[in-house]
Amino acid sequence: MPKDDLQVMRELMENHREGFALERHFYTSEAVYEHDIKMFWNRNWIWVGHVSQIAEPGDYFLFDYGPESVIVVRDREGEVRAHLNVCRHRGSRVCLEKQGTARVFSCPYHAWTFGLDGKLRGGRAMGPDFDPAEYGLFPVQVQIFQGLIFVCADENPPPLTGGLDQLLPLAAPMQLENLTLAHEASYPVPANWKLALENYLECYHCAPSHQDYSRSHSLKDPADVQKYGEALRTRSAAIGLPSEELDLTGPNAQAPGADVYWRRYPLLPGYQTGSEDGAPLAPPLGALTGHDGGATDLTIGILNNFLIYADHLVGYRFVPRGLQETDIQVAWYVRGDAKEGRDYDKEALTWLWHVTSLDDERIIRHNQEGVNSHRFAPGPLSEMEWSLSSFYRSYFRMI
Amino acid sequence: MPKDDLQVMRELMENHREGFALERHFYTSEAVYEHDIKMFWNRNWIWVGHVSQIAEPGDYFLFDYGPESVIVVRDREGEVRAHLNVCRHRGSRVCLEKQGTARVFSCPYHAWTFGLDGKLRGGRAMGPDFDPAEYGLFPVQVQIFQGLIFVCADENPPPLTGGLDQLLPLAAPMQLENLTLAHEASYPVPANWKLALENYLECYHCAPSHQDYSRSHSLKDPADVQKYGEALRTRSAAIGLPSEELDLTGPNAQAPGADVYWRRYPLLPGYQTGSEDGAPLAPPLGALTGHDGGATDLTIGILNNFLIYADHLVGYRFVPRGLQETDIQVAWYVRGDAKEGRDYDKEALTWLWHVTSLDDERIIRHNQEGVNSHRFAPGPLSEMEWSLSSFYRSYFRMI
Amino acid sequence: MPKDDLQVMRELMENHREGFALERHFYTSEAVYEHDIKMFWNRNWIWVGHVSQIAEPGDYFLFDYGPESVIVVRDREGEVRAHLNVCRHRGSRVCLEKQGTARVFSCPYHAWTFGLDGKLRGGRAMGPDFDPAEYGLFPVQVQIFQGLIFVCADENPPPLTGGLDQLLPLAAPMQLENLTLAHEASYPVPANWKLALENYLECYHCAPSHQDYSRSHSLKDPADVQKYGEALRTRSAAIGLPSEELDLTGPNAQAPGADVYWRRYPLLPGYQTGSEDGAPLAPPLGALTGHDGGATDLTIGILNNFLIYADHLVGYRFVPRGLQETDIQVAWYVRGDAKEGRDYDKEALTWLWHVTSLDDERIIRHNQEGVNSHRFAPGPLSEMEWSLSSFYRSYFRMI
Ligand code: FES
Ligand code: FES
Ligand code: FES
Repeated sequence: MPKDDLQVMRELMENHREGFALERHFYTSEAVYEHDIKMFWNRNWIWVGHVSQIAEPGDYFLFDYGPESVIVVRDREGEVRAHLNVCRHRGSRVCLEKQGTARVFSCPYHAWTFGLDGKLRGGRAMGPDFDPAEYGLFPVQVQIFQGLIFVCADENPPPLTGGLDQLLPLAAPMQLENLTLAHEASYPVPANWKLALENYLECYHCAPSHQDYSRSHSLKDPADVQKYGEALRTRSAAIGLPSEELDLTGPNAQAPGADVYWRRYPLLPGYQTGSEDGAPLAPPLGALTGHDGGATDLTIGILNNFLIYADHLVGYRFVPRGLQETDIQVAWYVRGDAKEGRDYDKEALTWLWHVTSLDDERIIRHNQEGVNSHRFAPGPLSEMEWSLSSFYRSYFRMI
Repeated sequence: MPKDDLQVMRELMENHREGFALERHFYTSEAVYEHDIKMFWNRNWIWVGHVSQIAEPGDYFLFDYGPESVIVVRDREGEVRAHLNVCRHRGSRVCLEKQGTARVFSCPYHAWTFGLDGKLRGGRAMGPDFDPAEYGLFPVQVQIFQGLIFVCADENPPPLTGGLDQLLPLAAPMQLENLTLAHEASYPVPANWKLALENYLECYHCAPSHQDYSRSHSLKDPADVQKYGEALRTRSAAIGLPSEELDLTGPNAQAPGADVYWRRYPLLPGYQTGSEDGAPLAPPLGALTGHDGGATDLTIGILNNFLIYADHLVGYRFVPRGLQETDIQVAWYVRGDAKEGRDYDKEALTWLWHVTSLDDERIIRHNQEGVNSHRFAPGPLSEMEWSLSSFYRSYFRMI
Repeated sequence: MPKDDLQVMRELMENHREGFALERHFYTSEAVYEHDIKMFWNRNWIWVGHVSQIAEPGDYFLFDYGPESVIVVRDREGEVRAHLNVCRHRGSRVCLEKQGTARVFSCPYHAWTFGLDGKLRGGRAMGPDFDPAEYGLFPVQVQIFQGLIFVCADENPPPLTGGLDQLLPLAAPMQLENLTLAHEASYPVPANWKLALENYLECYHCAPSHQDYSRSHSLKDPADVQKYGEALRTRSAAIGLPSEELDLTGPNAQAPGADVYWRRYPLLPGYQTGSEDGAPLAPPLGALTGHDGGATDLTIGILNNFLIYADHLVGYRFVPRGLQETDIQVAWYVRGDAKEGRDYDKEALTWLWHVTSLDDERIIRHNQEGVNSHRFAPGPLSEMEWSLSSFYRSYFRMI
């Protein structure tokens, strides 16, 4: 009896060797990719932006991944909502502009018109039995943490509230609700999204692959994290930032996909932030009173990662476009009142994660090329790659 | 047990909800697309051109769709014939030029040579048992209605003769056998062919999507068709055109795929033909004595649509190139003796359906984008989209 | 029960009609293509170059096909070795440059470092139980015949030694170990690799398709091979070249994939080598004392073909890149001490197989286009295409 690609996937999952990389099939099968979108991306929280990007009622932007498109909009009442960007009549995209301000969303095909709340306002020539209430845009769930917007296409998204409640006191001094977007960039890489995410999840590759990053960040060497950790805690306290860690990942998470992780680690001596020369890049975030030379790793859900310096936040997403097409999306945020030119220089601000993302694009591409070999065999993970095993477990639980 | 894509298709067919759009699978599955070509396109009549395009013996043109290619040629005896453009030796394309004049078709690979009638003229080094009579080009069926050429790759094509016999008296005054090609254009759209055809089949989208068309054509509003219908019938009679309708579609068709539909409807006041300013574009067709300000919708088979004004005919085809690649092909014909520059202006003649096809390309593309979503759900059809249900039934019967 | 593509393939194999071409499915199915790489390309010998291209220890080049990449390198001890270019950690390509000189291969991702012999030299942070000896690069088999390098990704490659031992006395005077690469070219063709190989395997198409080749080579007409054969044997003997043939193909091969074929055939009168004007192109190879106006067809394994004139060798490979993407790779070699400009003119040397490959690209492309038709039916092979039947048998035995 022939096995289909999803059966093969399930058998590989059952036989997966703990502490080893994933099999080729997970990165090369179209059926697995489709399944990833349906079962993993459409049921997980995805970070899409910040409330400051849709400040006024009617402001919206689109977020696209795989074959999906989501409208993120501030409604009349000022609440952030999200809708599937698919007309309930015959399925056209309803909203075509990447961002803008709207009073309603009118489908470009036959003009079915939806309110900012997604409700359908009647439909021409639909006959007497037609009930517009049944044909509103499919709702997409929204969760906001200190201004950071997350969406989930599933009706029953992973429960994030508990974890975020615990996170709040640690993050509060940064006042992340008070940010402004300084720059966004997208680095397309011909690789499966999982290879791009895995690359972010481990710093085993940092020393050999990221010279610029490794000059300033201790994470590439666990011994350095230890060595400079104590001094950092003192400096963090001095600028008003608590040093507690929070690890609600894997078995500690409230449910699969509800992971929250927060940890501050030291930059190397001489570096106050993630700049080329170590000097500050922008005004301190929120209530912070200065620069402590640290960086916080923040993960919310499985797919969303942030790095928060004393003066800016960098957000990362690894957005699937096709089986072996992924956009590495990077966004830089500074304090809400910071002005380009006056308070920060965009080139300087974005330098580190621009050059680092270019490195990663190259690395991930060559990773996919090798994994495509029919003779590729997953090898053992190092002690610095424990987070990959954790990701695989989360992934297996949801697909 | 794993289900393959065609099983999924069959189950969706069985569970299709009458009066609703088709499921995503019909537009996203490679297996369904392959099946569409084999079971629907290769067994239906396809309009490919007009006899005037191959006026002399040896004149030919190619018509390609999906992975198929057909040679349409006038043979030595003056008869129009069609052959599959695939060598019976090892399968090379036999004819490479899109159009021309030939005495024979000689395969560019090993020079097997076929007459205009498709017969193989021997073969080098084929041994004593080889019978060339067994290896003529595969015949493609040909049907001609008033000069319009239709082909069907299947040996048992849908029986069109009965329907066309009924159509003849209605169309006769237009003398469609006396046409000349004024212009052809192709609008590639990244969408499944069915979405392109469906777009043509309904005018629910005309009012919101086609401003230029809607200014002159009543079809975008059934009430207008009524309102101006009677006056049109009088004007049509005055120029020698009967106003009878013919609806041999769906259950009225002689067999699946043998549909014939003919109906004249009014342009809006001030429009004598499908021009920007309402003025005539070319000399009246055939025996017509003037312009009546009407337009005839003509469908022959399932795939072929024509719009006939008093002074020109526009033909439409939605030709599959890949699962989500389709060419919207539009061809404009005028009376056989009309000369460009003297009797018609090409820009003016083609303006309406050029701008309308550009609109449609955009609409259909956005339709496919939305349908690709895993959460797309087919919605209810309006009263102005009954022809889609009819198309779905025809499609289901043949796949 | 649904059939998968490999089941369909097996049924078509069982029902294959001897003396006829292959069915469409073998050229259009992605699953068959994947299977071709795994079962045919990864288990057959592939010619990749000549020892002179890696003259010194550390010299290497990459050979890529399908999703595979092989490092061919001369190790410290001077032996030619081949390794799969896939890191045993998480699968990155290990070597990125197409050719160069290396002391070790250090993976660009996490810096696992492999010796020229493929052995892993430890790994950072891998824990106490990690044994580097288990994670050397996967070995690829190497076989060298008179300097020509062949590789096979399978641990049990077809046994070539017996056949090559028989070949040696026939080829010895040419001293193929003493060659230098004069030029390489790649002609990408949008067709399955089997259509490209089949094109090389028969000369039924030479007369109609290759005017330049047919002006000088008798193979396009078996009668000419006969007619001019005796005189060639005399001339070959005069320059020190034996005229024996060797046919260890198909049933004569020691095992599937272990084929060896060697036969010299005459050029037409006036041609001393494969030049445009018939004049010599380079100094005679090895111990040959002049030009005999002959050309030797050499096949080693199933996939590797050579044409050896008195003064140069041309090697051919038909390298799969995708289901319908193939690179026709051609390489020209001259005697090891020949210098461009002084001893040969590169334009003149490469002229014939450049123009002939351009012809072939066109022919093969149109062959694939026709074979893609759902109505393509494999036709009977001519008496000049017996080698295709032989290839099909070899292919069937290994897939
Ligand atoms: S598809 Fe949106 S109104 Fe028809
Ligand atoms: S493929 Fe046409 S003659 Fe061989
Ligand atoms: S993939 Fe090569 S060292 Fe990690």
